[in-house]
Amino acid sequence: MTETSWHFEQFEPTGSAIGYRITRKLDEVQSPFQKIEIYESTDWGNLMLIDGAMMLTARDNFLYHEMISHPALFTHANPENVVIIGGGDCGTLREVLKHPGVKKAVQCDIDEQVTRMAEKWFPELCDSNDDPRAELLFDDGIAYMANVAPGSLDIVIVDSTDPVGPAEGLFNKAFYASCFRALKDDGILIQQSESPLMQLALIQAMRDEMGKAGFTTFKTLPFPQPCYPTGWWSVTLARKAGGFDFREADARAKAFKTKYYTPDLHRGVLVSPPFVADVLGD
Amino acid sequence: MTETSWHFEQFEPTGSAIGYRITRKLDEVQSPFQKIEIYESTDWGNLMLIDGAMMLTARDNFLYHEMISHPALFTHANPENVVIIGGGDCGTLREVLKHPGVKKAVQCDIDEQVTRMAEKWFPELCDSNDDPRAELLFDDGIAYMANVAPGSLDIVIVDSTDPVGPAEGLFNKAFYASCFRALKDDGILIQQSESPLMQLALIQAMRDEMGKAGFTTFKTLPFPQPCYPTGWWSVTLARKAGGFDFREADARAKAFKTKYYTPDLHRGVLVSPPFVADVLGD
Repeated sequence: MTETSWHFEQFEPTGSAIGYRITRKLDEVQSPFQKIEIYESTDWGNLMLIDGAMMLTARDNFLYHEMISHPALFTHANPENVVIIGGGDCGTLREVLKHPGVKKAVQCDIDEQVTRMAEKWFPELCDSNDDPRAELLFDDGIAYMANVAPGSLDIVIVDSTDPVGPAEGLFNKAFYASCFRALKDDGILIQQSESPLMQLALIQAMRDEMGKAGFTTFKTLPFPQPCYPTGWWSVTLARKAGGFDFREADARAKAFKTKYYTPDLHRGVLVSPPFVADVLGD
Repeated sequence: MTETSWHFEQFEPTGSAIGYRITRKLDEVQSPFQKIEIYESTDWGNLMLIDGAMMLTARDNFLYHEMISHPALFTHANPENVVIIGGGDCGTLREVLKHPGVKKAVQCDIDEQVTRMAEKWFPELCDSNDDPRAELLFDDGIAYMANVAPGSLDIVIVDSTDPVGPAEGLFNKAFYASCFRALKDDGILIQQSESPLMQLALIQAMRDEMGKAGFTTFKTLPFPQPCYPTGWWSVTLARKAGGFDFREADARAKAFKTKYYTPDLHRGVLVSPPFVADVLGD
């Protein structure tokens, strides 16, 4: 019998914790930015932690990766140029490149070690890294977005860690102004936005900052994400103008497989739970 | 500053754990059936644990209570007679009685102490205990269901603990046969059915037992439930025959408030996530 132990992560902002039964530590690297650890678990496959915070498990990352990509890509009329800020595990890139209309997808993560660890321990997430449409950069996402040609992007996906530490600068007006400038008029910004149950004030603050940068319409989509605090997470979409109706017929006709995303689910989450709508007003 | 500590619950079947930051223990009782503990938390309000397993928090129980009641009640054409097996915290009863067409709702929990603790520490869940349509029994749900008049019920809700210990007998053919006999031809059985991410084999086994008892159609609805293992939970509906289309117009016109349930959400979850459909076949 394999000896097991439990790894717990206490998340102060929600007053709750998550934990996993692990069999062993597989790897660890201290990058210039953060400490990355890989564990093997009994039921969740491999786990990646950054600075002690759970980033992903092999078992449940499909939820996050599908929900941070497909709703936005099926909302935009014709997404061709996509930038992913963060996303070093490459799972979001893989989902984006499932859309045949995408001509270029740039992934810009500040920490190359995240991608190297993903290639080693989560190779399934890196299936599309060699796609000719993919470009992997290891650079500061804030600086990258500030220098993108104005009006050149259809979708910007901010697939970042929590708004503390390296990712803090991805949650304020200055960064959102770069996104606004880089996006075409019908472009969409989508960003992971923490727990809808416990962090609506943070989501409201994000939207306020996005609004100061010029975005006028917003939509927050909740989804289950067991490995993140409260097990319930969200992404928030923002547009310069226009709504969030999606290309439902195209979504129904999609030629690729998903494990969680369906057009029916997408329709369902476009209407916010009343307790969310009461706070966010949509 | 209040001193805090963390309470962790390790759930062996999913190899994962949840935890809460607590300020103090408020109450504890050892009933003839189980140990019930009440804690005060920093962010989740009061917590109820039974035999060390998290039963509910003041903050997130609305998710479970709404999803174990409204989908079934809006699916049945005219639900008048409802029985809740378990449900001693009275939150499900409260949701059921929001439906004006319900003429009688019996709650049969084996352990009176669960209700007494709910009245004391979760009074908001007990708002409808004095409704003239409500009947609270403290008795063995298996025996109760075996003696219900045949063909007398529209809905049976099994709001039980996990299928170990006192609730084990609520997950097998013998109990489901009692439910089948007690329900009218268009009746609906609905039961909490654990984590869709990690326990699909258990859900399939439940459905198999329901099938042996005569039920022919099934639908599993997932929903977020932060205080249960993996943060993602489900209910499973079963019918003698017929589908799970619901009274959407009535749901849109409902005169009562919900915090999570919406008709749009209901439509969305009627289509299972592909990874669930691949296993359960719907």
